[in-house]
Amino acid sequence: MAATDPERFVVVYRVAASAATIEHRALAIAVEQSVEMPVAAIGDPRIREDIVGRVVAIDADGPDHFRVSIALASATTGGEPGQFLNMAFGNTSLQPDVELVDVSLPEALVSAFPGPRFGIAGVRAATGARDRALTATALKPQGQPPAALAKLAATFARAGIDVIKDDHGIADQAYAPFAERVVAVQRAVDEANAATGGHAVYAPTLSGGPAALAAQAELARASGVRMVLAAPMLCGLPTFAELVRDHLAMPVLAHPAFAGALRIAPPLLLGTWFRLFGADATIFPNHGGRFSYDAATCRDLAQRARAPFARLAPALPVPAGGMSVARVDEMVDFYGRDVMLLVGGALLEAGADLPAAAAAFVARVHAASERVA
Amino acid sequence: MAATDPERFVVVYRVAASAATIEHRALAIAVEQSVEMPVAAIGDPRIREDIVGRVVAIDADGPDHFRVSIALASATTGGEPGQFLNMAFGNTSLQPDVELVDVSLPEALVSAFPGPRFGIAGVRAATGARDRALTATALKPQGQPPAALAKLAATFARAGIDVIKDDHGIADQAYAPFAERVVAVQRAVDEANAATGGHAVYAPTLSGGPAALAAQAELARASGVRMVLAAPMLCGLPTFAELVRDHLAMPVLAHPAFAGALRIAPPLLLGTWFRLFGADATIFPNHGGRFSYDAATCRDLAQRARAPFARLAPALPVPAGGMSVARVDEMVDFYGRDVMLLVGGALLEAGADLPAAAAAFVARVHAASERVA
Repeated sequence: MAATDPERFVVVYRVAASAATIEHRALAIAVEQSVEMPVAAIGDPRIREDIVGRVVAIDADGPDHFRVSIALASATTGGEPGQFLNMAFGNTSLQPDVELVDVSLPEALVSAFPGPRFGIAGVRAATGARDRALTATALKPQGQPPAALAKLAATFARAGIDVIKDDHGIADQAYAPFAERVVAVQRAVDEANAATGGHAVYAPTLSGGPAALAAQAELARASGVRMVLAAPMLCGLPTFAELVRDHLAMPVLAHPAFAGALRIAPPLLLGTWFRLFGADATIFPNHGGRFSYDAATCRDLAQRARAPFARLAPALPVPAGGMSVARVDEMVDFYGRDVMLLVGGALLEAGADLPAAAAAFVARVHAASERVA
Repeated sequence: MAATDPERFVVVYRVAASAATIEHRALAIAVEQSVEMPVAAIGDPRIREDIVGRVVAIDADGPDHFRVSIALASATTGGEPGQFLNMAFGNTSLQPDVELVDVSLPEALVSAFPGPRFGIAGVRAATGARDRALTATALKPQGQPPAALAKLAATFARAGIDVIKDDHGIADQAYAPFAERVVAVQRAVDEANAATGGHAVYAPTLSGGPAALAAQAELARASGVRMVLAAPMLCGLPTFAELVRDHLAMPVLAHPAFAGALRIAPPLLLGTWFRLFGADATIFPNHGGRFSYDAATCRDLAQRARAPFARLAPALPVPAGGMSVARVDEMVDFYGRDVMLLVGGALLEAGADLPAAAAAFVARVHAASERVA
């Protein structure tokens, strides 16, 4: 759905209500999400006209549920990610009859956000994976010292895996401090690449408050790191957007930690919004794994990450969460070549046979990519 | 519940499961929230002993539901708010059968977080409200220019309201830029205080990414502002904690915007955690208003904000969300004197009679405070 009024963005909520009450409830949401006070008590007609939210559509959506579209003034966002979230789902998030399912933005508002600076093309350029599905894995478990993580990373790099990321639980802990770990792992990956002629990329987790994030971004750059991982909902979306825009001149892989509990449709949050706020690739729980998203949700999410969206570059979908090599063919069939397959714990179960298991994963993805158009 | 192992914090989840499956499910959560890989594939016994989560209790909690307590290693948090969230509810937030209901921390971990620097005593000192319930209201609606907001603030200050906050939708918009607005409103409140001998405090909204938050904090300080409002879930909790610790030498009022959709029990998030991360006062939707929390939830939330908690100062509960002057007596009876009552839109409905309505609100709260012990 495109926003047609260039001065407004349109927020779509799924609301539990009866046919008798939905009109009144929709108006109440439009007020809650704009002026948050009785409209009759607003003296200035310009505010009633330009600032108060407008209900633009109410559509039935299953028994006792409706889709309510509300047009909110772009001016209320101040062109800033945090205030945009606040306008879209600030107070209404506290009302359990409402789920946020979609938001459409006029182009002028899209351009207020960073969007992917590198996108799928940039991730492909960094890894040398020109037109096939990409492979990724994770350094696990946390608790290991930097040297052990570096050794593991070297094994994965020699097997030809494109992206080797920190497990999302690896942050800046005493047993593997960020500064030591990143230098050691990046060096191990560089050495493996030199030996194989490959282009494996290490993506360390950036975490912490804004000062730590900025310091880690600089340390990563200085250590030769060419991609990073961050969790936008742990950082806070405005902090993530600022990190991307002001501190990172390399592709950013977004992790969904802490994002799932929100009553926001996953395709909107992990597909559209993570991309809008600057992710070049977005990790999400694939259907049939340890998490509960169904196939339609995953398809919509991947579509939102990649489809044309104003002037934003496409972001790479990264289905994950309990995936195994046995599912590679099916996943490439489902998502096509513009995808990165992330297999973590399942590889580590191979124990001493890890190099062979990792190589088999890589070969399987390359072969599957040949089959799909 | 207190954590007994000084090296571990205990996370309590409410899990939907059958009696036959809960033990297996609990173990899976303990693994998901710690090493996120098959434990059998972990070679290092130290990691199995020190890092893997431990299920410490499983208690029935209604039909097909259980409370599962899992002890996680404090070392995994790196003593940092974002990574603490990640360990408590990172991946598991993506699994809809799990709700986060409580977390208990050993004292050493509590001290890694800022906590309220001023607390209830500091809010009382700033407003001169020694031992009664406090009053608060909001400048509304957004869309007004700074001069109009300043005039409204002066009216409230002259009526004797203790805290006049920006509406949470007022950020840094073109129609009332932060810099202009804060100077104008603070000056109007200062002049009203000079005329009445009162101590009304203006609490502007800080919003945006980390750079904007820090700049606004400095601007507020330089303008004579003595309290601020921020929304921790819009900022991101680690960003909020850093803002409080490094950029604000004045009490901080936390707003719950964007917090409600989370599958985290509100008393934990808005009571315990907002306090832990540095809020001196916490706004939450009171029972019987536009939102859905029941009385027991509100009582628990207020209790968590004020009760003894390691060495943290107590934070002031601020029930709000569609409150009116008619409910003042009942609310003071319910919460006692250590409370700030926030009435916003209901005052503005008085139109030209606003000064009298605001003064009546103040008088009612002062009188009600006399009645309760």
